[in-house]
Amino acid sequence: MILTVTLNAALDITYHVDALVGHATNRVRDVHQRAGGKGVNVARVLHALGHDVVVTGLAGGGTGTDIRNDLATAGLRDELVDVAGESRRTVTIVDDSDATVLNEPGPVVTTGEWTAFVTRFAQLARPADVVVLAGSLPPGVPADGYAQLGRAAGERPVLLDTSGPALLAGLTARPAVVKPNRHELAEIAASPQALRAMGARAVVVSAGADGLVAVTGEGSWRARPPERVAGNPTGAGDAVVAALAIGLATGAAWPDRLRDAVALSAATVLHPAAGAYDVDAYARFLPTVSVEEC
Amino acid sequence: MILTVTLNAALDITYHVDALVGHATNRVRDVHQRAGGKGVNVARVLHALGHDVVVTGLAGGGTGTDIRNDLATAGLRDELVDVAGESRRTVTIVDDSDATVLNEPGPVVTTGEWTAFVTRFAQLARPADVVVLAGSLPPGVPADGYAQLGRAAGERPVLLDTSGPALLAGLTARPAVVKPNRHELAEIAASPQALRAMGARAVVVSAGADGLVAVTGEGSWRARPPERVAGNPTGAGDAVVAALAIGLATGAAWPDRLRDAVALSAATVLHPAAGAYDVDAYARFLPTVSVEEC
Repeated sequence: MILTVTLNAALDITYHVDALVGHATNRVRDVHQRAGGKGVNVARVLHALGHDVVVTGLAGGGTGTDIRNDLATAGLRDELVDVAGESRRTVTIVDDSDATVLNEPGPVVTTGEWTAFVTRFAQLARPADVVVLAGSLPPGVPADGYAQLGRAAGERPVLLDTSGPALLAGLTARPAVVKPNRHELAEIAASPQALRAMGARAVVVSAGADGLVAVTGEGSWRARPPERVAGNPTGAGDAVVAALAIGLATGAAWPDRLRDAVALSAATVLHPAAGAYDVDAYARFLPTVSVEEC
Repeated sequence: MILTVTLNAALDITYHVDALVGHATNRVRDVHQRAGGKGVNVARVLHALGHDVVVTGLAGGGTGTDIRNDLATAGLRDELVDVAGESRRTVTIVDDSDATVLNEPGPVVTTGEWTAFVTRFAQLARPADVVVLAGSLPPGVPADGYAQLGRAAGERPVLLDTSGPALLAGLTARPAVVKPNRHELAEIAASPQALRAMGARAVVVSAGADGLVAVTGEGSWRARPPERVAGNPTGAGDAVVAALAIGLATGAAWPDRLRDAVALSAATVLHPAAGAYDVDAYARFLPTVSVEEC
């Protein structure tokens, strides 16, 4: 079982409008909404791939209820822990030219709620093969929150996908894998090797259409997709995390993990719906990903 | 008891942002939300004035639950009837220069849901002194929905506050009072007298800062506020409806009803929060409203 943690779970709402007009009243043509936040999105990919997955994290208020109802609809096992605050919504307004996004701040987590969550997390992590910690920390969670969870996970391998101070502090608990993108890496360190020096056992840097670079204790590799894939990049990073989590669970060799991650990510970009992947393209891409030692 | 009907109940969400930037990601500074829709807003004013009020209408989905939870928080008696569809949200994005509004379409009401609602409404109307029918009809409700409710209300006086075809069709059930604003009146008729000819027993036209014009079976009056009141006009119309509903319940003379409506409306404009009124200003304005026969 893979346990994914989403401390700042969200209800992702998408509005389609003809053209967003500022400082006017806009009629929404249609509304879509679903549970989101990085860990939830990773869990969705794992579930679609047939893996046993459990979703935990923090949720609260009416929006928290909406999030939980959507997890139930998706068939995802919901072990979110209640907080008193109201979970955040994200509103994405899509018109003919582009998307406008509004991000609510999310609940303020109290010290008592955080302590209770760490305890519950340790119980949930016990039967897990892999723990995925993904996304930003909501206000009130200590800056070293991911390090605390990493330690509470004990021997279970941890995959950490976050950025900035949360990533830096999280390294001290020696996560099995961290997955910054190029921009997130540049913000905090000069090289993947620097993150290993700070505690990460392996560093996988995602570079969009250029694929992945992995720096690990067993060697370093660069994996590239067979072709430039045009499409919807939303969810490509979550697909990489899902594939790397499966690799951690199965103990596959690094080149195989990277091949899988690049193929799944490219198949996700190719699918028009955010977070879904093109099953045929995944099978087709898999043998054509190039992996070279570097 | 005054029964208010909100067929298209809403969750009104307000986001404050520094400046809304289209086609970019915007951080929401703070979030406020509450149950809305005209009938709910009128009920809030009636409740604040100490009147016994019951809220009915249609609500569904997670947003419907949020609406009902907010009614409970406000201490309003909730007799909303469930529908399978998802109630609408309105999102108002306020920045330093103005407000941008997004209106969701709301649920599509089925024939069975509508029939069940009319039956339930008739039960709820039985002990009511006055029935307030306010706001737009959601998709699926027949165009003569307000006329059906008016007939189901039997002898109880009905105050109808809507516009366009819903108002025109509603006149056939002979409502005690209709309250179009100047614009809504101009859309469908040449004069208040024309609406009386089509079935309304009394017509009160709201004219913003110019006050009210009433054309009734007992005479015609113009009521004007004592001064031009600057402030937040949101909720001024709901305050007029609330005051007129109280007048119907008590059987006060028309000049007194109009005086009350103008004073309450001006006191609402003066209060910075939408839908709340300035208690001192209300008491101060009341004796200074001018009412003349015309």
